[in-house]
Amino acid sequence: MEENDRANVTGPTGIVMMNLGGPKSLEEVEPFLLKLFEDREIIQLPLQRWLGPFIARRRTKSVQQNYQDIGGGSPILTWTEEQGRGMCERLDSLSPATAPHKFYVAFRYIDPFSEDALRAMKRDGVKRAVAFTQYPQFSCSTTGSSLNELWRAAKRLGLQNEFQWSVIDRWPSHPRFIEAMTQTVREGLELFDQADRDDVLILFSAHSLPLSVINRGDPYPQEVGASVHDVMKRLGFAYEYLLCYQSEVGPVPWLGPSTEEVIKELGHKKRKNVLVVGIAFTSDHIETLHELDIEYGHLAEEVGIANFKRAPALNGEPLFQDALAELVQEHLASGEACSKQYGLRCPGCVNPQCRNLLNPVASYKRTQVSASPKNKLYPST
Amino acid sequence: MEENDRANVTGPTGIVMMNLGGPKSLEEVEPFLLKLFEDREIIQLPLQRWLGPFIARRRTKSVQQNYQDIGGGSPILTWTEEQGRGMCERLDSLSPATAPHKFYVAFRYIDPFSEDALRAMKRDGVKRAVAFTQYPQFSCSTTGSSLNELWRAAKRLGLQNEFQWSVIDRWPSHPRFIEAMTQTVREGLELFDQADRDDVLILFSAHSLPLSVINRGDPYPQEVGASVHDVMKRLGFAYEYLLCYQSEVGPVPWLGPSTEEVIKELGHKKRKNVLVVGIAFTSDHIETLHELDIEYGHLAEEVGIANFKRAPALNGEPLFQDALAELVQEHLASGEACSKQYGLRCPGCVNPQCRNLLNPVASYKRTQVSASPKNKLYPST
Repeated sequence: MEENDRANVTGPTGIVMMNLGGPKSLEEVEPFLLKLFEDREIIQLPLQRWLGPFIARRRTKSVQQNYQDIGGGSPILTWTEEQGRGMCERLDSLSPATAPHKFYVAFRYIDPFSEDALRAMKRDGVKRAVAFTQYPQFSCSTTGSSLNELWRAAKRLGLQNEFQWSVIDRWPSHPRFIEAMTQTVREGLELFDQADRDDVLILFSAHSLPLSVINRGDPYPQEVGASVHDVMKRLGFAYEYLLCYQSEVGPVPWLGPSTEEVIKELGHKKRKNVLVVGIAFTSDHIETLHELDIEYGHLAEEVGIANFKRAPALNGEPLFQDALAELVQEHLASGEACSKQYGLRCPGCVNPQCRNLLNPVASYKRTQVSASPKNKLYPST
Repeated sequence: MEENDRANVTGPTGIVMMNLGGPKSLEEVEPFLLKLFEDREIIQLPLQRWLGPFIARRRTKSVQQNYQDIGGGSPILTWTEEQGRGMCERLDSLSPATAPHKFYVAFRYIDPFSEDALRAMKRDGVKRAVAFTQYPQFSCSTTGSSLNELWRAAKRLGLQNEFQWSVIDRWPSHPRFIEAMTQTVREGLELFDQADRDDVLILFSAHSLPLSVINRGDPYPQEVGASVHDVMKRLGFAYEYLLCYQSEVGPVPWLGPSTEEVIKELGHKKRKNVLVVGIAFTSDHIETLHELDIEYGHLAEEVGIANFKRAPALNGEPLFQDALAELVQEHLASGEACSKQYGLRCPGCVNPQCRNLLNPVASYKRTQVSASPKNKLYPST
């Protein structure tokens, strides 16, 4: 285990916390959706340049209503900043050799964008930077898209040689993450009467993906499965549990079982006590506060699930800040550019930009870009 | 931890090793296929009573040819018996309070059938019996079907009150199983030249399932994901790896990515060193010896994968016999009837027979049978 060579590096260690982001106000809903439907790394539409904005604008009103229902905006920036502060405080004592540590938020579809993070890092004199995904499980459509955008943004700003990069690209079974997640499940279980607790069914729910992405070889479902299994192991497998997938949109087939269908079926099966756990996201967002709490809350009531509760998201949980700090500390101590797995492009990959790593801190190899004609889907940069 | 109350129990502890089975000779191919295509718990066909035998007979010749290619029959009985002997020897010293231990093989589609196992147990004076699935990861179409058949067979023989039952229904991440599986991967890695070893991509392959089964809520893919993750953790994530699914048949959509497609794509991506690992089966069978070694071996050659190897199946691996013995010992010591999870019928379950446990050794509760009209697919017994 070799610490970074601080002799050659000045300035703070910059940690870029990458996530989806969410509109902070109702006015930001439209620009957020426009960005989202423009991203071919998450959604592929025919005639995307025209159809994307069309769909985004058509959805704006109903999505605004959803944000209105949860208080007028997404709390993801507030939580990410609180998590970042806790992480950096802990890191400064865990890893004095790489101190000071500063975090920078880079959201994919709303400000602060990658550009904002990169400019602030330049201003702060950062030389050594860690791109740290805030998605525990890797998917090309989430972490992949965020990283590709980060490298593109650095090039757009002419900062491609400014920082020495490494990447924390996944952490589905990091013991402290699992501990923190298990803690939220325990808090969720306490929402039930003692007499009902033994009967609680734990419903892990993760954002779904189109089957076309799964069939390309995206590792997401197996890593989500690993997270679920490790949480249940920590709970001694003392509860019944299911893994299901939420938030499918559009006419293409998605990975199932669908959270909505599962809730209906559990109602038919006369289940009375269901605890939903968001396993693939680290703070509250529209999919927890609106889809799970409000929409599925109503659905559960309709189908007769008397006690339908949700485990709190990780949000300000101190154990989660411990996890973030340990992840970065272990990563910095390893001296590695990224996981071995990051370099492996999906077998059916159609995106030549995938799995890049700009100006890596250590040797980095990715699988060759396929010569297959399928590779024409994306313009190269 | 309470040992079984041996005061009330006489005779050996019977351990029923349940698995798919395979034809021991070319003559057994047709009866094997007839049984397989008759089982609505694994395959649902329209007009199954006519269409099942039709398909089975039509496939017999080509499947016979496959068995001919691998030496004239399936080695699964030989391996299961060797594993059973090793397990019982170890158990007699690990758990003297429940000794002697005797194993009984119960295959689903060929003899020895459940009836054979049950009759032999009766003859041997077994009272306390453990139904031990040999599928590490649970699926209703494998372990579920075997257990349902075991209870039906006991009733057919009038032996429904003869034995006190408990069930080992899954063990995807048992530490000793993971250790044994990792050992086979290490042996597979040694098949590559030292210089190539770093470049090896580990291709975990498991039998696929129709998406209709996944969408009902079958836990199989998440448990396979957990096994893969735990093996890779033990290998320090030092190799690139993928999980894919093999052996799809018929026109319905199956869980992907498909092993065959992945091999083609890896060829396009100029991968030269690929190690295939069967993660969901415990001995060699037609899907390893023919599909992986012969069919995909040819395919790999065609697409330019210079070194396409397969890790040995668990077969006679002593660590695996340790795992089997520990699994049974821990199970007997727990005093439990089965895992909490076994009682949970899939949300979309259409089979009222599922998740039964005949004459259980300890209290056992399963979720209620749905009143939904979908439940009419199976005749009840």
